[in-house]
Parts: sequence; C-alpha cells; structure tokens
Amino acid sequence: MATKEFKVNVERVHIEGSDPSIRVPFNKLTLTNNETILLSTTEGETRENLKLPKIRENWNKDENRGYKTQLEAAKKGIITKEMEYVAIRESFKYGDDMHFTPEFVRKEIAEGRAVIPSNVNHTELEPMIIGKKFSVKVNANIGASSLSSSIEEEVEKLKLSLKYGADTVMDLSTGVDNLTEIRESILKASPVPIGTVPIYETLDRAKGDPGAITWDLFKQVIIDQAKLGVDYFTIHAGLLKELLPHAANRLLGIVSRGGSVMASMMMRSDEENLAYTHFDELMEICKEYDVALSLGDGLRPGAICDACDEAQYGELRAIGELSKRCFENGVQCFIEGPGHVPLDKVFENQDLEDEICNEAPFYTLGPLVTDIAPGYDHITSAIGASNIAWRGTSMLCYVTPAEHLALPTANDVKVGLITYKIAAHAADVAKGFHNARERDNALSKARAEFRWYDQFALSLDPENAYKVWRAQMPEDCNHEPSFCSMCGPRFCPIRLNRRLQAKYLNNVKTSS
Amino acid sequence: MATKEFKVNVERVHIEGSDPSIRVPFNKLTLTNNETILLSTTEGETRENLKLPKIRENWNKDENRGYKTQLEAAKKGIITKEMEYVAIRESFKYGDDMHFTPEFVRKEIAEGRAVIPSNVNHTELEPMIIGKKFSVKVNANIGASSLSSSIEEEVEKLKLSLKYGADTVMDLSTGVDNLTEIRESILKASPVPIGTVPIYETLDRAKGDPGAITWDLFKQVIIDQAKLGVDYFTIHAGLLKELLPHAANRLLGIVSRGGSVMASMMMRSDEENLAYTHFDELMEICKEYDVALSLGDGLRPGAICDACDEAQYGELRAIGELSKRCFENGVQCFIEGPGHVPLDKVFENQDLEDEICNEAPFYTLGPLVTDIAPGYDHITSAIGASNIAWRGTSMLCYVTPAEHLALPTANDVKVGLITYKIAAHAADVAKGFHNARERDNALSKARAEFRWYDQFALSLDPENAYKVWRAQMPEDCNHEPSFCSMCGPRFCPIRLNRRLQAKYLNNVKTSS
Repeated sequence: MATKEFKVNVERVHIEGSDPSIRVPFNKLTLTNNETILLSTTEGETRENLKLPKIRENWNKDENRGYKTQLEAAKKGIITKEMEYVAIRESFKYGDDMHFTPEFVRKEIAEGRAVIPSNVNHTELEPMIIGKKFSVKVNANIGASSLSSSIEEEVEKLKLSLKYGADTVMDLSTGVDNLTEIRESILKASPVPIGTVPIYETLDRAKGDPGAITWDLFKQVIIDQAKLGVDYFTIHAGLLKELLPHAANRLLGIVSRGGSVMASMMMRSDEENLAYTHFDELMEICKEYDVALSLGDGLRPGAICDACDEAQYGELRAIGELSKRCFENGVQCFIEGPGHVPLDKVFENQDLEDEICNEAPFYTLGPLVTDIAPGYDHITSAIGASNIAWRGTSMLCYVTPAEHLALPTANDVKVGLITYKIAAHAADVAKGFHNARERDNALSKARAEFRWYDQFALSLDPENAYKVWRAQMPEDCNHEPSFCSMCGPRFCPIRLNRRLQAKYLNNVKTSS
Repeated sequence: MATKEFKVNVERVHIEGSDPSIRVPFNKLTLTNNETILLSTTEGETRENLKLPKIRENWNKDENRGYKTQLEAAKKGIITKEMEYVAIRESFKYGDDMHFTPEFVRKEIAEGRAVIPSNVNHTELEPMIIGKKFSVKVNANIGASSLSSSIEEEVEKLKLSLKYGADTVMDLSTGVDNLTEIRESILKASPVPIGTVPIYETLDRAKGDPGAITWDLFKQVIIDQAKLGVDYFTIHAGLLKELLPHAANRLLGIVSRGGSVMASMMMRSDEENLAYTHFDELMEICKEYDVALSLGDGLRPGAICDACDEAQYGELRAIGELSKRCFENGVQCFIEGPGHVPLDKVFENQDLEDEICNEAPFYTLGPLVTDIAPGYDHITSAIGASNIAWRGTSMLCYVTPAEHLALPTANDVKVGLITYKIAAHAADVAKGFHNARERDNALSKARAEFRWYDQFALSLDPENAYKVWRAQMPEDCNHEPSFCSMCGPRFCPIRLNRRLQAKYLNNVKTSS
C-alpha cells in the first residue's frame, strides 16, 4: 500500500493595517488536529502575478511628506507606513493588543536602536526592522562573479534565500559586465532589503586597480546604486590609516575584501580613508534615498588569535563616532561586527558595541568560535552567532559550509540559511521574544501525540525531516505510526507517557 | 597536468612515562614548512597488529594493590598507572614541565571532580579522564538493534567513531540475540571506555515486559556486564516515584528510554525505583570491577518548555545524594544532564549541577536550544553543548542529524562527531585549556601563507575540506595557488597582507 503523501497544509493570509495598502503577508499552517499557527513570510513576486501594485508604489509619492528618512520621520514624531507595517509583522497582529505598537517602533528608530532599510526607490520592498528589541534577523549573501554571471542564476539564488527565510540579502556581485542589469533584476524580484558593498563595483570600474580609485569615482557608484534602489551600503569608513600598523601585526591581517581595498588605497596614496574624509557627502547621498549605512568592519578578525585587538577595537571606536554623525544627520545606520572570536569574548564584543555605538543595531558575521573546521564553518559560526544574538545583536550574516574554501553552491546556501535561522530562533527564545516559543511548543506537542506530519510541517526544513524519517519506516506503513525507527515499535518512551498521564492526571484520556 | 595529490603527513609517536608500559600515542603532523604539531589519538588494534601486549594487561595483576577503584587509590594518595597515563595524554608531554602532573590528576579524582572510567577487565583500554579541569570529551552512541545486528557492523561503527575522535562510546545494543558476543567484540576492539545502559539488556531478558523485571534480574545483568569489562553504566537511580506526577504534568513527559522503563516498573508495582532501593548493592558491584556510575537523567527534558522543571531538578537533587554516596564508597561517578534547554537556562543547569553534585563531572546530551529543527539537531544541540562545556561540563554526548527521526547512518555518525569536536574544542579554547589554541593558530598561519594543504591537514575533516576547495579550482592547477574561488585570482585580501606587513613591519620579507 502506498505511503500517505506528505504535504504541508499552508495558506497565505494577510493582516491589514490602518490603510488598505498596509497588508502584511503570513503563512497560516493548519495542523492535522486543526490547530493553526502563523509563520513569517514574504510574498514578493506573487503581487506581480496577482497584478497588484507594488507594495510601496504610492507610499513615497508625497513630495511634502516632511522627512527624507525613517530616522528623520521618527525624530519628528511621524509614524510612517513602513513603521506600521513592521509593527504588524513583528506582532503577528494589528490593533490594541499588538506586542509592538507602531509608536513603539517609531521610538526605537528615533533613538537609533532600530533601522528599517528602505530605499525610496525600492518599491517592491516589504519593510522589515533590524533592532535588538525585535526578532533576530538573518542575511544571506548572493552575487555574480566572473565565473558565473547570468541574471537568471542570481534571481534563482535570491528566491532560494527567500524560501529558507533570509530577512535581507546582500548582492556581492563583482567582476561582471552586466552588473547594473543583474542588480536591477535582483531589486525588482526582492521583497527583502538588498545590501551591497559599493567599493566592489568601484574596483571593477577602476579595472581592478585600487590606485585608480578616486572619491569622484566612488561617489558616482554610490549615487548610481542609490538611484537603483539599494537599501543599505556596507562602507568601510572606520578603517583609519593609523590602524594599518595594528593590522600588519596580526596573524591574518585584513580578511575583509572591502577593507583590504581601502587599505590598499591608503598604502598607495598615504592619505586617509576617502570614505572617512568624505563622510558628510556620503551621508548626504544616503539621506536623499534613505539608504541605510552598514558601517563595515574592514578589520574584523579572521583568526581567533586576532580577535579583540587594537585593530578591531580601534576601528569600532572610529565607527562609533561615525554612527553618532549618522544619527545626528538623520541617516539610518547599523554596525558590522566580527568575524572569528573565541566563545569567551563574544559577549564582550556585543557589550562594547552597545557602549561605543549607542546601541545602534549590531550586524555580525558569525562569529566563528574556532578556526579548525573549514567545511563546517556554518556550525562554528552558528555557535558564536546564537550567543551574540542572545546578548543583543540584531542581525546575523550567514556563513555557509563553503566558507574559506569555495563559493557556496545552492545546497550550501540552503544549509547556511537553515543553520542561521536556528541561531536566530535560539536567541529569540533565550531573549523571551513574545511568540518565539509558540512554534517549539507546537512541534513538541505534535511529537508527544505522534503527529509526525505536523512535526515535519512545523520544522525549518519539512522536506528533509520527512525524507530522513520515511527512509527507515516500514514500506507498507500508510498511516502515522506511534513509533519511530529510533526505538522501534516495542518499547517507546513517548507511548508510555500516555499511561503516565492517565495514572497521574485526571483530566487526560488514555488512548492506546 | 594532474593535480598534486593531497595526503596528510602524519606519523604515530609515543610519549613514555615512568614505566615502559605507560606509552601514550599521539599523531605527529608534519606541515609543508616542516613545523610539527601533536594531535590526540588512540591506537587500539594497531597494538594487536604489532603483537604488543594489551596495554593494561599487567597493570592490574597485583592482588594486593590496596585499592579497588581509581577513586579509592586517589584518596589513599596512590598515583596509579592510569593517572600517569592520562596526565601525559592531557599534557602532551612527560616530565617536570607537564601542564597536568600525575599528582594533580590524583587530587582531582580524590576530590570527586574527575573520573577515569576503567573497568579492570577492559585491558585494551587506553585510559582517559573526564573532569572540568581537563579537555572536554565527546561520547558517540553505537549499538545493534533488531533491524541490524552484525558484529562486523558494530565494530565498523566503533572504528568510525574512533576515526572522528570519540573519547568514549556507548553501546546501546538492544533487541538482539547475540548481545554478549557483540559487546565483547566491541570491548576488545575499543581503546576508549565503553558505556552501557544495563536496563536495556534487562528489558530484553524480560522479553520486553517491564513488569517482569526484578532486582535479581537487573543485578545479574549488571554483574555480567561488569565482568565483560564495561567501563561505565548509565543507571537511572535518581528517578524517584514521587517525581512521576511532575513528569506527567509535562508536555513531553519522559523521553529517556531507560527512564521510561524505570517509570513503567514503578507504575506497575507501585514500589520505589529498584535501582534506588538497591543502590548499596549496585555500588558494591561497580566497586569490585571499577565500573564508573553515570547517574542517568531519566527525566531530562525532551522539549524546551519542560526544561528546568520540578521533574528535572527534583531528579538532580536525588542524583546529588547518590553521588555523595558513591564518593563516600569509593565508586567513581559522573552526572548525566539534559536534553532540551533554552540558551538562557544552559548556565543555570551547569551551576546547579556543580552545587548539588559537588562538582562531580557533568555529562550532557547537547542541550538542544530549540525544538524546531529536526534533521539539524546536531546543530541545535552543538550550540547548547559548547556553552555548557564552556561553563564546566566535562563530557558531551553527541547528537546526530538523524535525532528524533531515525537511527543514524554512518554519515550521520561522522557529522555528529565532527560537530561535537567543534563544540568541545570551542569550549576548550574559551576555558583557556593549555594547548587548545595551538591548532587554531597553526591553521590560521597556514591560511595566511596560502599553505592550502596544511589548512586541510590541520582541519577536523581534511578529506572534505580538500574536496570542497578542489572542486572549484582550475583543472590545470598543480601547485598551491595564492588565491581561492571565493575572491578569484584578481584581488585577494590575504595577498594584500604581505604588502601590508612589508610596509609596516620591518622584520617581514615581501614575497609576491
């Protein structure tokens, strides 16, 4: 007899805000016992398929709206549509009993503790918020290179990232001729914020020669990308010239690609970092389009023995100054963090960032807690990532199993993302985020009641969970059996629990 | 042109102690720059191949040695051969400048803070130590079941576990006819301590009926296994009858298989846990053969919402009393711990165990920090495991990707072990274990110098690291190139570091 087919019973629902254009999508999962649970999602292209207008099509039409950026609006006491949207998205509801009210969101942004990356020209964006009071977010990196550069391929990578829950995506494309075309296609297809590292395109335009990079060239790239709709820029403006001797003293020097381009320019010209010296102009451009600045850690440690040294912390202090200037100028910003850091120094990194950068959102790569496991650095870094997020980091940049060895394959992207959704969720649970435990409890209840298919449906990778379980179950099993291959049918602890409850609890029925 | 073949340059070396029979094996890795590094290993069957006597063949011949167990010896001030052996093994050297002297090892054991599981009849054992002052250990589970039960298969699983660094192995065989034969083969082939859960065999002998289990039957199994040479027993003696109503109140009740057999017996007979009521007799048997007691957590939480409840902590308090009785009676013991625990409660678990069990070694399963990722529970648990080990847990029981879904395949065993070696190593680094960072630094130095093959050789899974890297390198590359596919040959941050050092450090030569 054939096995019952496994299918997740999910439908798309929306929660509307104060205006019909504020319509936040969720996935509503219906379990076999008819209980339901809402899960976060984005919908992206389905709006196009349904011939709906782009979500932010008309949100920013008003020239007299009185603010350029979300931060400026927040400071003026204005609650934007973006703020209301993320309030619903984080609360899973709208109305008086929201966990996060739009006013709370406004306040967090006004104090610089949260950011909504949302370029006014990225009208396809479904707004999301990055900040320590909200759920922990995950970024995935994609990007064409001279080795592979088709538009279709990059849009596929984007969709794969969205399927496995990426909250933002960085497009690190470099070395390709059709860069603008690729980036535009990614932006149009993306309901999540898109980040870039503009110095990459600048180096391309300078034909790979850092010595040929001028401020005018860099500025033009930034303007072009801002006009295109990029939601946040990683700029390594805190990597000051005086820090280079400290970097030289390290075992692994500079491992950030953008950081090393900046260093190369300074070494050639013997002048200060041009992103630092032209920071006012840079902020002006970002403000015009509401591009958030991701203040890059060009000196992030690439080995645990380089962690927490004067190069890293010196740069963090410089970034702290820049973050204050962003805040004063109404430019949204967040702070990039390491890297390779031993477990006993992870909290110190978050605490120092809080202190130096006035609690601006921290966005870290891992950190990786050991150097000895290339091929498994999604795991070495998830250990650091869950810890630092528990301590307050707002967004985690994923690391794939290919890190240090190769460019990630599609499967690497999937494994990296699921690993980081675990790290982010573990932190949400530990922080007591309002509804984080709901999914854990629903899954464990399904486990207690032998609702196998519900366990799979509630898991981060339903197809894989089903496949592993199915492979060891008897061929002729066409129902959901009350055992698994771990203990076999004979003596199962979970089955015993029914008798345990029947004996000690009055309100529970026995079912055998 | 063919690719240079990748081969790890490793040879077996030994460090001798005060007596020629104390000869601790290490793997000496020679890197391409002629630097060397010692790595832990066991040698097992190679002794037999070389026609050497079993390592402990003559260590326990002396009937008048004046002690039954390592704990008894330690209390009497006797430094056993086992203690000296583990001192060398943990120090990576012998002599005056050892990091851990044999006397230090004796003291830790005498205070109950460390255990050397070493049944006098397991003469093939290469002694190892479990204790918070020493390196963090990892256990792997193997075992035949009614589904697969060949001796060869189990010995293969053991060898696989040893290859990937298991420090102890638990044989959880159950439901097979040739149980004794299988276990004996495992013991003979094993240089690491073998643990069992004797209630499994007892249930087999009772034909699967917990109601047919008597103390006499259980006792006979324990005696038989002790004679065979099993090094440690998991016994769920702290699962008291009064705790059952608390377990019934949980979402997931009892998830420990051994614990649920004990609970089933108590529910039928309405009598107290027989391992608790006969604990004196139990200790007597363990003492006779120096079997260590692993005081099992039959009420470990199986869902994060069940963590840290009265069922779990009530059992821990009962175990605390039992651990004191073990200590007084000269029986080595350690304490089993959870389970599913949210990240913010992980430290609390270790701290409470320290307090209640007088710092007896803690041996935890994970803990898993979320329930929502079946198929990835090696990762959810490695996050908890690295944290609890950093806080003081001495040994980690691995969790494989198959957990909650199926019996692990060979690849699951491998992935589970590597993941747990990462967790254990991350904790060693965080605790400042004396030579833990050596391997990290050697690998990162190789990374800085483009010694790719040395990076692979120093990693936890050299074959895999090589395979991933190789797949994306140009076909005709027969040397070690100074770039990788991540950035490509054009602009590489690591290459820039050479110029950085040349400019800012006087003592470094440029090589292009």
